[in-house]
Amino acid sequence: MPTSRFFENLATLFNPTTVAVIGASDNPGKLGYHVMKSLTQGAFPGTLVPVNPGAAAILGIEAYPAIEAYPGTVELAIVVLPALSVPPVLDECIRKGVNGIVLITAGFKEIDDPRGGELQAELARTASEAELPVIGPNTFGMVNLHRSLNASFTPEFSWVRKGGISLVSQSGGISHLMAFLAMSGDVGMSKIVGLGNRMNVDFAEMFTYLVSDPNTDVIALYLEGLDDPRKLMEAAKAHRGAKPAVAYKTGSAVTGDRASLSHTGSMAGNQEVYRGALKQAGILPLESAEELLDAARALAMCPLPKGPRIAVLSGQAGPGMAACDLCEAQGLEIAVFQPETQNVINELLPPLALRTNPVDMGPAWYKASAIEGIIRAVMTDDQVDALLILMMYASANREAPAAISPLLLEWKQKKPVVSCLVSPPGIWDDAIRTLENGSALMNCRTPERAALAAASLWKYGEMIKNLEAWSKEEHRRQKTGDRTRSKA
Amino acid sequence: MPTSRFFENLATLFNPTTVAVIGASDNPGKLGYHVMKSLTQGAFPGTLVPVNPGAAAILGIEAYPAIEAYPGTVELAIVVLPALSVPPVLDECIRKGVNGIVLITAGFKEIDDPRGGELQAELARTASEAELPVIGPNTFGMVNLHRSLNASFTPEFSWVRKGGISLVSQSGGISHLMAFLAMSGDVGMSKIVGLGNRMNVDFAEMFTYLVSDPNTDVIALYLEGLDDPRKLMEAAKAHRGAKPAVAYKTGSAVTGDRASLSHTGSMAGNQEVYRGALKQAGILPLESAEELLDAARALAMCPLPKGPRIAVLSGQAGPGMAACDLCEAQGLEIAVFQPETQNVINELLPPLALRTNPVDMGPAWYKASAIEGIIRAVMTDDQVDALLILMMYASANREAPAAISPLLLEWKQKKPVVSCLVSPPGIWDDAIRTLENGSALMNCRTPERAALAAASLWKYGEMIKNLEAWSKEEHRRQKTGDRTRSKA
Repeated sequence: MPTSRFFENLATLFNPTTVAVIGASDNPGKLGYHVMKSLTQGAFPGTLVPVNPGAAAILGIEAYPAIEAYPGTVELAIVVLPALSVPPVLDECIRKGVNGIVLITAGFKEIDDPRGGELQAELARTASEAELPVIGPNTFGMVNLHRSLNASFTPEFSWVRKGGISLVSQSGGISHLMAFLAMSGDVGMSKIVGLGNRMNVDFAEMFTYLVSDPNTDVIALYLEGLDDPRKLMEAAKAHRGAKPAVAYKTGSAVTGDRASLSHTGSMAGNQEVYRGALKQAGILPLESAEELLDAARALAMCPLPKGPRIAVLSGQAGPGMAACDLCEAQGLEIAVFQPETQNVINELLPPLALRTNPVDMGPAWYKASAIEGIIRAVMTDDQVDALLILMMYASANREAPAAISPLLLEWKQKKPVVSCLVSPPGIWDDAIRTLENGSALMNCRTPERAALAAASLWKYGEMIKNLEAWSKEEHRRQKTGDRTRSKA
Repeated sequence: MPTSRFFENLATLFNPTTVAVIGASDNPGKLGYHVMKSLTQGAFPGTLVPVNPGAAAILGIEAYPAIEAYPGTVELAIVVLPALSVPPVLDECIRKGVNGIVLITAGFKEIDDPRGGELQAELARTASEAELPVIGPNTFGMVNLHRSLNASFTPEFSWVRKGGISLVSQSGGISHLMAFLAMSGDVGMSKIVGLGNRMNVDFAEMFTYLVSDPNTDVIALYLEGLDDPRKLMEAAKAHRGAKPAVAYKTGSAVTGDRASLSHTGSMAGNQEVYRGALKQAGILPLESAEELLDAARALAMCPLPKGPRIAVLSGQAGPGMAACDLCEAQGLEIAVFQPETQNVINELLPPLALRTNPVDMGPAWYKASAIEGIIRAVMTDDQVDALLILMMYASANREAPAAISPLLLEWKQKKPVVSCLVSPPGIWDDAIRTLENGSALMNCRTPERAALAAASLWKYGEMIKNLEAWSKEEHRRQKTGDRTRSKA
């Protein structure tokens, strides 16, 4: 495990005051240009130091021939030079006393030529001796939205809204995808980190750092395959339950490449082993990029349910049925209301509606007070652990979200409330944003995704509860010398 | 089975010249107001006849006290009166010679009071004797985008782009949801039909009509439960393979309502029976509203693959892996390229890239000609039945979609091409629209959804091929009197 000095440096790497770009360029054909654009367009509030021996200024900012030529302190150096130029630059950075490096350059361990791997190993030794964290090589970089720091070659990462989800990813492509999904879904993120070849900052180091990062509420991981999965699992176990953690792992496919069949064949078998290991470590495994983002968002926005009993309140019967199907398939239970709750609902809805759970609130469209009354009764029913509120826009229910807003904003998810309020573009967008920003609910684009998100809250909570019970039991056995099999 | 006169009337119902709204209103608290708004804002090009005994005009359009007071011919009557007023109005409509009715009114078979069911049965007898199709009752209505006819209480249905997918749905909520998903995904639709209580227009009748409708390319069904599923299955079988058909069926949940446990318990068991029956009828079952729309879109936009062998060409490795996982899980095979194809790719990509399938085209970002060369070689490889092209935007590959456009537009999906080109909002939207409108590919928002869409093409084609082989075998056995078991 790296030293505490290493972790202090890692925290500074993500929150620098001065950033040098070694290999900064004015030429749009160079990555060094795009990195400069990311930093300037992302409005980094600190000092930028372009380093380029052939230019007096880059994008109008004074440039230096070498990092050591800059008179002030530099906390973070972003390196976009060809692979072979990197070793002397790393030495310079160490002499300059930088706290961390983002090494975007490719051409190391990932290439066929063994010299790539040797070069990387040499850099790793030097960096680790200096207790210097290096993100990469072979990465798009990283973003810390809370510091307005876009240390990547994609300026548009800065368009993502600031929030609590940190993504640590083994793929630049998936990182970009998730950032674009976050943009279109107005999901707030904290850090987006491309680990690249994971020279000395791997999932384990990032996990440990993010647990202590005040701007991270949920840790989301995208994995393909790890040389030493135990490192991550141990780091996660050490902080189990401290912050919700979710993961999406690909690599189950047996590809058509006959030459690599034996290799990938074993990877496919590993998929179930990974799922089990992630769960043991307190990380909830998920099945797609969209599910990963939805689950992370749910965990960032909602409290955990105390039990599996969910109420499905739907403005139309069909979406309620679709959600119930998913809820049950995912292990949630459709709650049976207390008699008092049922009485309230029976008074508020005409007998033609489905009044037991799932509740079809259709006939109450015109009466905001009835919808409000139903939601209030269900919220406070101690047989209900979580709420799903589903409503598709129709001309006649246009005002419904605004009408239930005060109740939901006041309630602030004492139990998790996941909704699926969907309208044509532009109609309910503001009302939904008000509810989400006021922590009143988490909204999803389909009933199925809302049900999955609610289920992920329950599954995460259950997973942690079971792991804790098991730990306690283990601890008791160790203390008492009990050698009988643990029940968990 | 209804008469051919009934089906002629049904076709006219969807393509009327004059539409009467019985129960038209100027009062926004009435559905009759919203229906009038839908027709006018939807810019129906024919004549509108508001019927309301208490008004000289509705929304500025001359109103009549009764449909019979209108001097001209009326093909379609939309009825939004209270349930008890409907029987005499139905008689009037028949006397007036209308070809069809959309009966939005609720309060029939769906209510607890048995008089609702009796009233509906009475209407059904009258309508069917007159060979008059009635959509509903208890429906939002229907939309025919090719006729600019919005016969629903939701004006925003008219915002959906005109296209080839017709949705027939047992739920108003799911119909609205799918229309909104279509809007945000720029998916073209033909008809959106809410069957409501299915008085005399059920799935079977709609299926038969849509098979002959020149504006429908794909039939999408949303089902909850049918009294007589065989009717639909037989109608679908009679036209098997004539037009692609897909379905999403909910109702698997055993709800928390203890009273209905035995009932819904049997529904849950029915889910697998439904899947089997749908497949036998040549209708591909799917698992969510989003999947239903994606599969329908794929079948409307792409040819069917000749086999299961897919090429995954990815601008970044991660999305390619995610897609491969899904492809294999769905029964597709990751193609092994012909040696000539592999040679071309090896020449165009540096050795550091994954050059076998899935191909990591990352290193070719800057060279549009290389990406083009790879796609061209793979397109014409006879070991490849379908293509997935995945690329996440990054500053450096901004021009890639435009660069491969001419090749894809010229190729026009001789084999199915499904893509996942994703950028921040606004950057690639136009380029993607050009490709989609030019029938060059179908684009999806995530690699997983692209893989699922490609898989649905393969699964649909396989299902039809197997059913045809089975039919031929059955036919042969019947002809030859062979009583041995069919192999299929």
